[in-house]
Amino acid sequence: MIRPGQTVGILGGGQLGRMLALAAARLGLRAHIYTPEPDSPAAEVAGACTVASYDDEAALAAFARSVDVVTFEFENVPGRAAETVAAVAKLRPNAVALATTQDRLTEKDFLAGLGLPTAPYRAVNSGAELEAALADLGRPAVLKTRRFGYDGKGQAMIRPGTGPAEALAAIGAAPAILEGFVPFEREISVVAARGVDGAFAAYDPCWNEHRDHILGLTRVPAGLAPETAAAAIAMACAVADALDYVGVLAVEMFLVRDGDGERLVVNEIAPRVHNSGHWTIEGARTSQFEQHLRAVCGWPLGATTRLGRVEMENLIGADVEGWADLLADGAAALHLYGKGEARPGRKMGHVTRVFPE
Amino acid sequence: MIRPGQTVGILGGGQLGRMLALAAARLGLRAHIYTPEPDSPAAEVAGACTVASYDDEAALAAFARSVDVVTFEFENVPGRAAETVAAVAKLRPNAVALATTQDRLTEKDFLAGLGLPTAPYRAVNSGAELEAALADLGRPAVLKTRRFGYDGKGQAMIRPGTGPAEALAAIGAAPAILEGFVPFEREISVVAARGVDGAFAAYDPCWNEHRDHILGLTRVPAGLAPETAAAAIAMACAVADALDYVGVLAVEMFLVRDGDGERLVVNEIAPRVHNSGHWTIEGARTSQFEQHLRAVCGWPLGATTRLGRVEMENLIGADVEGWADLLADGAAALHLYGKGEARPGRKMGHVTRVFPE
Repeated sequence: MIRPGQTVGILGGGQLGRMLALAAARLGLRAHIYTPEPDSPAAEVAGACTVASYDDEAALAAFARSVDVVTFEFENVPGRAAETVAAVAKLRPNAVALATTQDRLTEKDFLAGLGLPTAPYRAVNSGAELEAALADLGRPAVLKTRRFGYDGKGQAMIRPGTGPAEALAAIGAAPAILEGFVPFEREISVVAARGVDGAFAAYDPCWNEHRDHILGLTRVPAGLAPETAAAAIAMACAVADALDYVGVLAVEMFLVRDGDGERLVVNEIAPRVHNSGHWTIEGARTSQFEQHLRAVCGWPLGATTRLGRVEMENLIGADVEGWADLLADGAAALHLYGKGEARPGRKMGHVTRVFPE
Repeated sequence: MIRPGQTVGILGGGQLGRMLALAAARLGLRAHIYTPEPDSPAAEVAGACTVASYDDEAALAAFARSVDVVTFEFENVPGRAAETVAAVAKLRPNAVALATTQDRLTEKDFLAGLGLPTAPYRAVNSGAELEAALADLGRPAVLKTRRFGYDGKGQAMIRPGTGPAEALAAIGAAPAILEGFVPFEREISVVAARGVDGAFAAYDPCWNEHRDHILGLTRVPAGLAPETAAAAIAMACAVADALDYVGVLAVEMFLVRDGDGERLVVNEIAPRVHNSGHWTIEGARTSQFEQHLRAVCGWPLGATTRLGRVEMENLIGADVEGWADLLADGAAALHLYGKGEARPGRKMGHVTRVFPE
């Protein structure tokens, strides 16, 4: 068990690392950030930072030796970097969880192996395979790179008129999977944690609305039937158990309403704290950031009790220029990530509103 | 008006500076700590730190030039240091507020000048003055150094058997005041903020219990009659207005119950965020730390709405060894200050519990 005063190493220096470092500080833990990026949002608030690339094995090993446990804030940490770290220090979540979730094909096979519902999918490594997959799954369908996709990047929708070659070109002809289109009513996610001892605690599922493929608005509760919410949480628990997961994870799902009523389709797993869990800072007894630290430190998980009806809105790009108005809104809790330039599509901050239920 | 991305300079590196720096980070502000102490709790979480003494005028001026506004986390910043800083940068609260509150005699004269009720008091600079003051005010009475007192330090109770020379020796024969004893039922405080525009916002008064002269437990609400609570807040507002105060302040008061019912006696003013306001982190819509930053940045004050019945318990010295039990208590929000050695009397952290009302 990690003790207050000891150091949590965090691979990645973005806003998730920043909010982890802030939560660590509240708990008397030190944070050491590892990031290739100078002047990262997380380094600003952490006691130590190593600026080095993810293929600098000497720097990774020195980092791992200098801390008491290592975690990560993004799922694209290269597998080799994770192994280098894990050879020296406790890596939580483990390298298998990372490897499973950073490749869409491996992830879908894993989910299917657990008997969890996913979109129909086929591996695609060539134009011929794409043609065959389209023949199987029909159109519309979504072609996605196996690796490095996020916020809609590395994806191409294949509609009735889209040529396969065009779609392959759009994703850079990288190894891919084709997913049959799921006619979903809404997207939800379950943010949950699993402890070193196998304890599991989920927040209430949340309803996520995207703008230009980037999360725009999260609402909790998600408006699910109670049995659907319970099923969503049970699926997240099955995923966490199967990965021997330690930390917070998010499982994104589609809610489909058809003749049989509500059903869920698992979309993807994020092996980390998640944008759709930011509402927990003000909206739950324990924030997802504290919860993640509790788990990776071998501490008991905190209460996930929700404190009201919650809305979390991302501030993307120029949205952040509304900061002064948001400060004047008595219901709004403003979070800014300390990023310099408000480029389009860049997550600059978020705002949370908790209402009595 | 300060903008996100700009820097707040904080004189002092203790836990109050640490929690200010954490609140600054959430709002996208940078924090620069100035402290004589290497490895201070605040520096660990701030983007910049100057380690230098409060009489290093060159370091103070360089610090002030490098930031966009300066505030402080403790009231014993030397007046000359405050003037050096204020000559270069905006100092909020102002130097007059600091000077008024760091000398108990000046403070009492200020309060009396506003017509606010205080304990009867006399200036004491010699044994003869102490004898005369005791003849006026009777016993028991409390002899307090004019400057540098906190947590019961620099105080001596003069009971019927106490010799004046003994009491003077106990406080190091420093310039002092004698205060008549106030037979109070409980101690309360009002934590409130005043903005650059003169706006004023108070949290609900809280009830403070001390152990060995150090704050042990804060409870909100304080169990006051509504008109007493309103009077307490009005007094804090009068103090803030008279000092042209900008930022959070705490006004400590005694609640006296006698033939006339409840009445209040102002004890002292803390020109800064205050231990009795730590409950606002989880227990109010806006924490006192965010509120202080809003004020010193020229931003609108946040809502002081209380979110339940709240108890805040200090972890003093060895209390901190109970951290693991506190983590297992689902109702407890644990805050640790990252201090190394748990010396007796040292504030190591605190724990807050918010209950439905």
